[in-house]
Amino acid sequence: MNSSDAVLPRGAQVPAGPWDLEAWSTRHLERVEQALSHWVAQEAPAGLGDAMRYAVLGGGKRLRPLLALAACEAVHGNGEAALRAACAVELIHAYSLVHDDMPCMDNDVLRRGKPTVHVKFGQAQALLAGDALQALAFELLAPEDAGVPPAVQAALCRLLARAAGYEGMAGGQAIDLASVGRALTEDELRAMHRLKTGALLQGSVLMGAVCGTVPAPALEALKAYGAALGLAFQVVDDILDVTADSVTLGKTAGKDAVQDKPTYVSLLGLERSQAYAQELLAQALAALAASGLPDTRALRALADMVVNRAN
Amino acid sequence: MNSSDAVLPRGAQVPAGPWDLEAWSTRHLERVEQALSHWVAQEAPAGLGDAMRYAVLGGGKRLRPLLALAACEAVHGNGEAALRAACAVELIHAYSLVHDDMPCMDNDVLRRGKPTVHVKFGQAQALLAGDALQALAFELLAPEDAGVPPAVQAALCRLLARAAGYEGMAGGQAIDLASVGRALTEDELRAMHRLKTGALLQGSVLMGAVCGTVPAPALEALKAYGAALGLAFQVVDDILDVTADSVTLGKTAGKDAVQDKPTYVSLLGLERSQAYAQELLAQALAALAASGLPDTRALRALADMVVNRAN
Repeated sequence: MNSSDAVLPRGAQVPAGPWDLEAWSTRHLERVEQALSHWVAQEAPAGLGDAMRYAVLGGGKRLRPLLALAACEAVHGNGEAALRAACAVELIHAYSLVHDDMPCMDNDVLRRGKPTVHVKFGQAQALLAGDALQALAFELLAPEDAGVPPAVQAALCRLLARAAGYEGMAGGQAIDLASVGRALTEDELRAMHRLKTGALLQGSVLMGAVCGTVPAPALEALKAYGAALGLAFQVVDDILDVTADSVTLGKTAGKDAVQDKPTYVSLLGLERSQAYAQELLAQALAALAASGLPDTRALRALADMVVNRAN
Repeated sequence: MNSSDAVLPRGAQVPAGPWDLEAWSTRHLERVEQALSHWVAQEAPAGLGDAMRYAVLGGGKRLRPLLALAACEAVHGNGEAALRAACAVELIHAYSLVHDDMPCMDNDVLRRGKPTVHVKFGQAQALLAGDALQALAFELLAPEDAGVPPAVQAALCRLLARAAGYEGMAGGQAIDLASVGRALTEDELRAMHRLKTGALLQGSVLMGAVCGTVPAPALEALKAYGAALGLAFQVVDDILDVTADSVTLGKTAGKDAVQDKPTYVSLLGLERSQAYAQELLAQALAALAASGLPDTRALRALADMVVNRAN
C-alpha cells in the first residue's frame, strides 16, 4: 500500500510532501473505465448500444470523473455514489461531443483520433445515441438498490440537470452558436464558457462533494474552485488550439481561427491568455486552501494538470 | 364544487355513475399548461428558450401528463410531485418529437399544424433545444425546496430515465430506424412499440403512482394497465394514419405507407387492428379493476379516450 492509498482520519492535516497524481489517476481511472464499460448499454437494441459504447469507451482524459472522485475524496463521501456521479458526468460530456460533432453543429469528422459517431454510425443513430446517453446518466444517479441514500440521489440529479441544461452546457452551446463570426467582449466570452464547459466541470466537483457531508463554507469554496478551474480549462483549450498540432490534440487543431470563433487567444493574445490561465490556477488553489477540507491533494493536482497540460 | 372535485376518503368505493372526463381534463390541463409555461426556460440564452417553448407550449394532447395526474389521483399521492412528473414526461415527449422531426430522422416539416422546430429555428438550435428539454425534465423532478420527499424524487428520476433511455423510448426509436423497409413479425412490431411509445406512456402512469404509497399488487396492475394502454395507443395511431386526414391529425397522414414503415394495419389489416385496439382496452380496464385502487375513474376514461379518439 503506497502513501496515496492511506485514508486520513477526519480533520487530520495532510503532509505537504510529494504526491503522485499519475498513480492516483491510474487507480481511479481503472474503476471508471470498468464501471462505464459495465453500465453503458451492451444490451441496447438495433446498434444503439454499439454507438453509445463507441462514443464513451476507449478514449478521453476523463477529467470530469476524476474531479468528481477527487471532490468526494476531499469530503470522505460515499464511494458508490461518487463512482456513479463520475460516470454520469462523463456520459453527459460524451453525449455533448456526439451531438456537437454532427453536421448541423460543428461538422467534425475526427474525435480522439477516430471517426466521429455520425461518420461511423450515421446521423440518426448518433442523434439517438446522444439522447440515450443523457438518459443513462440520470439512470446511473438513481439506482434502486445500491447503498446510495435517496437524498444524495436527488441532489446528484439536481446538480447534473442544472449543469447540463439551459442554464449550463446547452445554454452555453446556444450562445456559442449565436456568436460565430461576431465580435464578443471578454465578459461575453467568459459568460459563454462559464456555461458551455464551466458548468459541467464545476458540476462534477459539486456532485463529488454532495456524496459526503460538506459544511456550507467548504461547498462555497469548492464552487469557487470549480468555477476557476472550468474557466482555466477553456482558456488553455483556446491556447492549445493555436500552439499544439492535431496529433497531440487528438482533434483538428487551428479550427477556431478557420471558423472565426471568438477565443481567449483572439481576444487577449497568446501571452496574456497564458498569464490568465496561471491566474485562474492560483484562484482555484486559493479556494481549496480556504475550504478547510483536510485532504485536497487530488483536487490541487488536477487543477495544476488542467492548466499545464499539453493536450 | 362539482362532483368530480370531491376527494374520496381512502378505501372508499367510488359510485359507478357518469363521470366527466372533459371537465376533469380541462381542470388538470390548465395546471399543466401554467406549470409548463412557468418552468420552460423563459430565460434560456441566445434563442434557446424560444425554441424550447415553441416545442412544448401551445399544442399537444398532453396525454402523458394526464396519465401521471390520473395515476397520482388513484393513489392519493403528492400533488406537487405529480405536477412535476406530469410536466417532466411531457418535456421528454416534446424533445423526442423535436429530434424525431429532424432531417436525419423523419424529416418532417409539419407538427401540430405548425412548422417543426428545425424548420423554424434551424437544425442546430433544434438539436440543442431537444437536449435542453431532456435535462429540464430531470431538473423538474429534483427540486431543492418543494415539499417532494427525496425518495420520491429519486424514484421519479429512475422511472423517467428508464422510460426515456435505451431500454425505453430511445431504444425503440433505434429499432424503428433499423426496421424501415424491412418486414417485421407481429412480435417484433410489438417489441418495437413497447419501447418506442409504450415505455413513456407506461412510465407516466408509474411516475404518477410513486407520488403516493402503492401496494405492490396495485403497482403491478398499473404496470399492466400502462402496457396495454401504451400498445393500444400505437395501434390506434397506425389506424388513424390510414383513416384520418392531415387536418384532423395535425400532422401528415398516410406517411407510414409512403415511408414503407411496418404498422399494425400493414401487418394485421384495418379490421383486425381495430379489434386488437378494443381488446387492449379491455385488458387495460381489467387491470384497473384488479388493482384494488378505490378511484380509477380518470385512468379508465383516459384508456377509453386513447382507443376511441379521432386524432
